[in-house]
Amino acid sequence: MTSIISIHTQDVRFPTSLELDGSDAVNVDPDYSAAYVVIRTDAGDEGHGFVFTCGRGNEILTHAIDAYAGLLLGRDIDELIYDLGGASKRLIHDSQLRWLGPEKGVTQMAAGALVSALWDIRARRENKPLWLLLSEMPAEEIVDVVDFTHIRDALSPQQALDILRAGEDGKAARIAALKVDGYPAYTTSPGWLGYSDEKLVRLSKEAAADGFSMIKLKVGGNINDDRRRMALARKAVGDLPIAIDANQRWEVSEAIEWVNQLSEFNPYWIEEPTSTDDILGHAEIRKGVAPVRVATGEAVASRIVFKQLLQAGSIDVLQLDSTRVGGVNENIANLLLAARFNVPVCPHAGGVGLCELVQHFSFFDYAAITGSQDGRMIEYVDHLHEHFAEPVRIVNGRYAAPELPGTGAEMLTASRDRWEFPTGAGWLEVGDRAAVTGASVTGAGALR
Amino acid sequence: MTSIISIHTQDVRFPTSLELDGSDAVNVDPDYSAAYVVIRTDAGDEGHGFVFTCGRGNEILTHAIDAYAGLLLGRDIDELIYDLGGASKRLIHDSQLRWLGPEKGVTQMAAGALVSALWDIRARRENKPLWLLLSEMPAEEIVDVVDFTHIRDALSPQQALDILRAGEDGKAARIAALKVDGYPAYTTSPGWLGYSDEKLVRLSKEAAADGFSMIKLKVGGNINDDRRRMALARKAVGDLPIAIDANQRWEVSEAIEWVNQLSEFNPYWIEEPTSTDDILGHAEIRKGVAPVRVATGEAVASRIVFKQLLQAGSIDVLQLDSTRVGGVNENIANLLLAARFNVPVCPHAGGVGLCELVQHFSFFDYAAITGSQDGRMIEYVDHLHEHFAEPVRIVNGRYAAPELPGTGAEMLTASRDRWEFPTGAGWLEVGDRAAVTGASVTGAGALR
Repeated sequence: MTSIISIHTQDVRFPTSLELDGSDAVNVDPDYSAAYVVIRTDAGDEGHGFVFTCGRGNEILTHAIDAYAGLLLGRDIDELIYDLGGASKRLIHDSQLRWLGPEKGVTQMAAGALVSALWDIRARRENKPLWLLLSEMPAEEIVDVVDFTHIRDALSPQQALDILRAGEDGKAARIAALKVDGYPAYTTSPGWLGYSDEKLVRLSKEAAADGFSMIKLKVGGNINDDRRRMALARKAVGDLPIAIDANQRWEVSEAIEWVNQLSEFNPYWIEEPTSTDDILGHAEIRKGVAPVRVATGEAVASRIVFKQLLQAGSIDVLQLDSTRVGGVNENIANLLLAARFNVPVCPHAGGVGLCELVQHFSFFDYAAITGSQDGRMIEYVDHLHEHFAEPVRIVNGRYAAPELPGTGAEMLTASRDRWEFPTGAGWLEVGDRAAVTGASVTGAGALR
Repeated sequence: MTSIISIHTQDVRFPTSLELDGSDAVNVDPDYSAAYVVIRTDAGDEGHGFVFTCGRGNEILTHAIDAYAGLLLGRDIDELIYDLGGASKRLIHDSQLRWLGPEKGVTQMAAGALVSALWDIRARRENKPLWLLLSEMPAEEIVDVVDFTHIRDALSPQQALDILRAGEDGKAARIAALKVDGYPAYTTSPGWLGYSDEKLVRLSKEAAADGFSMIKLKVGGNINDDRRRMALARKAVGDLPIAIDANQRWEVSEAIEWVNQLSEFNPYWIEEPTSTDDILGHAEIRKGVAPVRVATGEAVASRIVFKQLLQAGSIDVLQLDSTRVGGVNENIANLLLAARFNVPVCPHAGGVGLCELVQHFSFFDYAAITGSQDGRMIEYVDHLHEHFAEPVRIVNGRYAAPELPGTGAEMLTASRDRWEFPTGAGWLEVGDRAAVTGASVTGAGALR
């Protein structure tokens, strides 16, 4: 028997707030961070996973991962990685820990990091990147890893199987195509609220020239600023789609009014117009801003909320996030739910490491689920990729297929150690300049 | 200036899993626990708060409280306790910590414990129990502590003010009546799944004789067992209302079928028939099981989810929970939302300390918001009250008005120290007998 002998967590933070990269109407000063975990076995297996956070509280996640780690330590790794559905349920439905969610927030993200780290071991064992492992896995095994609890009214195991069976047609050709051409990307790099108009225009033009399918601007701070920035961006990129993103800044009626004041610039979608928990509010906003699409997902806590956003007709675009939900398994559930409702998935990325993780889900979606790239693209932000074992590669505005075995989570040891908070050498050098030592209150609520 | 000089957390757990008190279809072996916090100032103020949990992971909450404590340490206590709306926003909308929810799960509960501990200091300063402090507070100040972010489409500040103004009529008489007669209670003590039929019947008869307004049975493990237990309980208590509680065990269609198989025993409400995140599912269940009422709330993460449960007509009874949401402030929001939709509030209690906390909200609701006790009662379970500075008192099946200044959160120092996990003397004595050292998987998901 091969056993798990250690589960080691690390609080890794990057002082991004110093540059206002990643600033928006709600996340005014993020320090992009990872609550990082490595699972090791006595046979030398190594599985990496992490939860992305915005800085303060990253240690809550490492403690939460430690709490779930107690359920895995000493166990037979083969039993876990060849029954990843069972492994996930053991963590997520733990009878005592469940109270702390259930299936939402810190605990779901922590359990998800461990679930994904187990997938990392499985993929390394099979010498495949996650997207290819999933794409070549029998449909029955994919269905088996999905937790259908509380979503059966929208997606039954049989319906999931039917979707995957239909996806088998032409799969080998699509896998081959992905290896050559990759997958469409859009970029948020030009649009952070903290950037000057000059920088916005320059980066927008660069994005269009680089072949991205879309750019995205942060909005929601001030309507006059938004109109000016949107006009500048529209002029800079011509007919290229421009999405806008309010990061949950608005009330329901306010969202409708605000978006309608920007509609002359033809936004492709409005992202996170209000609380992502507000299923009914999104449905009302979608009616009020049509034909502008409504997108959300980076803060959607679980498949149960996604199910309802789809049932209520609240969204045109589903933005799954790699480390918000219960790991690879729950993201497969979210891909299948989206397919069932014929809603395209455009994953959330950026932060640190999210691009590296999330690309695998879109590649899998194209290869084995929907077989389509229409209206589908992966978010791209050009930050912090150099810290990863296999940084994402963008070629002609498209994600190139990842090749290294695993989920893409592995961060370089030197980076993890240098930016370990608060004792890593990087933090000792940054010292008092870091916003992480202070605190600020976010836009929503604070300004009312 | 009077400053906060310490914020001390403690991981307090009681080995209740040894007796199967509190066992239900999902929470099969809880060790009732409190992530406890005491705020102290340099003037000798002391404010107590806690989050109730089921055991494993209680330390995640103490770490989370520590993370938020950094936002309060050293600050002027008067600025905080005389602007409790601002104090709450400073914690809950912190620009970096917000990512970990937002406004749900571990972080919301942790911030809520601190918010409530600040209220404890305020109430002690004014020498009043919380319910009386709230009931005698000017309507404008109550409105000022409510965070209307993302609920304005259902409840505006002006509407909240109107509700409170209407509640001023007859308030003094209702406060006087509460001090004499207390508030109706129902009890869950007879109905835990782990209890024998004999114990169920004996405790049901005792509850009826003691004057409780209702008893509640846990259901959802096995339909034949549920029918047998329901028949026994109905025979034992005659016409007394009997509620049933599935603790989120079912899918939507399964809930409807199951409840309809119990309808001949006339259940008063079905509680938590499915995931509490499933707003649309509850609406469908409510239609399918009428005239049986639908109740939920102990796991509802925020006012934003309650808003939608009310907007969608998903519930007949709103069961707020003292330590699930963002403290006293968010519970006031939930009371006002319920009043706006004319849905009665019957708070969740039990666990450890929840009875002590939650009674204050029902007393306040009667005195200053709805002025009604119709269809309203507070859950009561006879466990662990002896550990509190002012244990709840039940007289003729009703909660007697709490009298000590504060929120009711204060647990005796000796109890906290004895049951501090894992090093308290109690835990050293219990040792290996405790289920907390093991782990089990909950009903939902595990049995499928």
